Amino acid sequence: MNKILITGHQNPDTDTITSAISFSYLQNTLGKNTEAVALGTPNEETQFALDYFKIHAPRVISSASDETNEIILVDHNEFQQSVSDIEELTILAVIDHHRIANFHTSFPLYYRAEPVGCTQTIILKIYKENSIEIPPAIAGLMLSGIISDTLLFKSPTCTQDDINAAYELAKIAGIEVEKYGLDLLKAGTNLSNKSAEELISLDAKSFEVNGKKIRVAQVNTIDYDDVFLKKNSIETAISNQINQEGYDLFLLVVTNVLDSDSKILAKGNASQTAEKAFGVQLDNGEAFLKGVVSRKKQIIPQITEALS
Amino acid sequence: MNKILITGHQNPDTDTITSAISFSYLQNTLGKNTEAVALGTPNEETQFALDYFKIHAPRVISSASDETNEIILVDHNEFQQSVSDIEELTILAVIDHHRIANFHTSFPLYYRAEPVGCTQTIILKIYKENSIEIPPAIAGLMLSGIISDTLLFKSPTCTQDDINAAYELAKIAGIEVEKYGLDLLKAGTNLSNKSAEELISLDAKSFEVNGKKIRVAQVNTIDYDDVFLKKNSIETAISNQINQEGYDLFLLVVTNVLDSDSKILAKGNASQTAEKAFGVQLDNGEAFLKGVVSRKKQIIPQITEALS
Repeated sequence: MNKILITGHQNPDTDTITSAISFSYLQNTLGKNTEAVALGTPNEETQFALDYFKIHAPRVISSASDETNEIILVDHNEFQQSVSDIEELTILAVIDHHRIANFHTSFPLYYRAEPVGCTQTIILKIYKENSIEIPPAIAGLMLSGIISDTLLFKSPTCTQDDINAAYELAKIAGIEVEKYGLDLLKAGTNLSNKSAEELISLDAKSFEVNGKKIRVAQVNTIDYDDVFLKKNSIETAISNQINQEGYDLFLLVVTNVLDSDSKILAKGNASQTAEKAFGVQLDNGEAFLKGVVSRKKQIIPQITEALS
Repeated sequence: MNKILITGHQNPDTDTITSAISFSYLQNTLGKNTEAVALGTPNEETQFALDYFKIHAPRVISSASDETNEIILVDHNEFQQSVSDIEELTILAVIDHHRIANFHTSFPLYYRAEPVGCTQTIILKIYKENSIEIPPAIAGLMLSGIISDTLLFKSPTCTQDDINAAYELAKIAGIEVEKYGLDLLKAGTNLSNKSAEELISLDAKSFEVNGKKIRVAQVNTIDYDDVFLKKNSIETAISNQINQEGYDLFLLVVTNVLDSDSKILAKGNASQTAEKAFGVQLDNGEAFLKGVVSRKKQIIPQITEALS
């Protein structure tokens, strides 16, 4: 029997990489033969967490059917965010906290989604249901996923379940949440060595709504100028991607993790959708979105609505 | 705030009706304001269970947006099997044990699916996770759902989880599983007072595969002749439905609950799909399928495959 691969989404973030690792550890402890893989290399925030807890980054793949026919998805379900040959594989399980779309199977499966801030919060519940002990390093990675996805509990996606899970995991990992959390978030805001192309691809997801191709990239910062002083080259990089991939709307969301606000840059022939979605006026493609930090809860549903 | 409605699928069977009831009781105990409803009246098997445990049948609806904007789906997820205005509602949760298809949401939700034989097996787990006591009558209905969906543990969809759940629920309900189980299944095989139209609509589900409209009706019996002696009028009823609804394939699956085999009747311009799907030769539209009892595991995936 081949190994079951466990993967998060493309352009992996901390939750997606660490969820593959923690769910693989859980499944292997239950007697399954699984391997955590990733659809890209860790970003600097994720690498900070992996280094801190001395865990290797998962092997990077882009397709899976040459080595297995069984896969488990964590932190995503939409096929366009997954391995390129997802339609050829049997999806055994999904653990996720996103909307469900562009997803289907021929067979019944294990699907566990909850409207919480982080996949790890759900995985912790499954650990408990199966009475499996969590090693401190795994607990540290799980905590990192929660801090990252909830911006240290400040995102509107954060629930009491996430906060409880984080403090429970911190105890197992022997970590002081606030101090470690700020260090982790700051590690992900170092954009100085990133090219414009890298910057708009770091954490970007594609969606299709009513036949429109949407790309939403998000970067965290502690100073908007780190991004907007490079606006010209970023606009060129975005235009190139629009031409290559046929996006109708490319939205770059620059989130200040200290203030919990965002500035957006909208490009593409459907860029006025952003004005409708957020009730703002674009100024040279830019707008300030007060209190907006969550792509999942404050960006995607509003764009979906504006296009429906 | 409006009531949250909880519903199973169209052409309700015992699992779908009783799951709406047991999940509504669970949610209300947790402080939610929910009502179990149904997309049709109970069949004779379900009515037997409701009478036995002295629980009223849920109110019948076909659409929901005139009275609520929030719904919970049990025992199904495919939109064409749900309320007619499902696209206008917010789906708060899904508890199911089927494949996922023709399903999507704009927002994250609670989705709990497991590849087990019955929705009630999953609902029992959620009762336990929330430490909620199950009243004997509710336990009896949950047991009835498991017996019905697994054909008293004989279906290939039945898992050890279902068997364990059934005996645990039987203890709470004070029921002897085998005796009650046979009585329940037999109550569902009384086809003598059914018209051909009723017979092909009792437990029928629609699917779309590669643009083809498929309808699969299933009836339980203890004697194939109860159905096939009426073949002429059944064929007329099927042809009428094909003409009205534009089905490419209408499959009637007649399952002998004592022998655990089935005889099928295939009609429609794609009826040869059944030959390919099951590796059989149709004789006047009929074929015997040895050991086949599960639409979900032994019919739908094979037809999906044959049409792909």
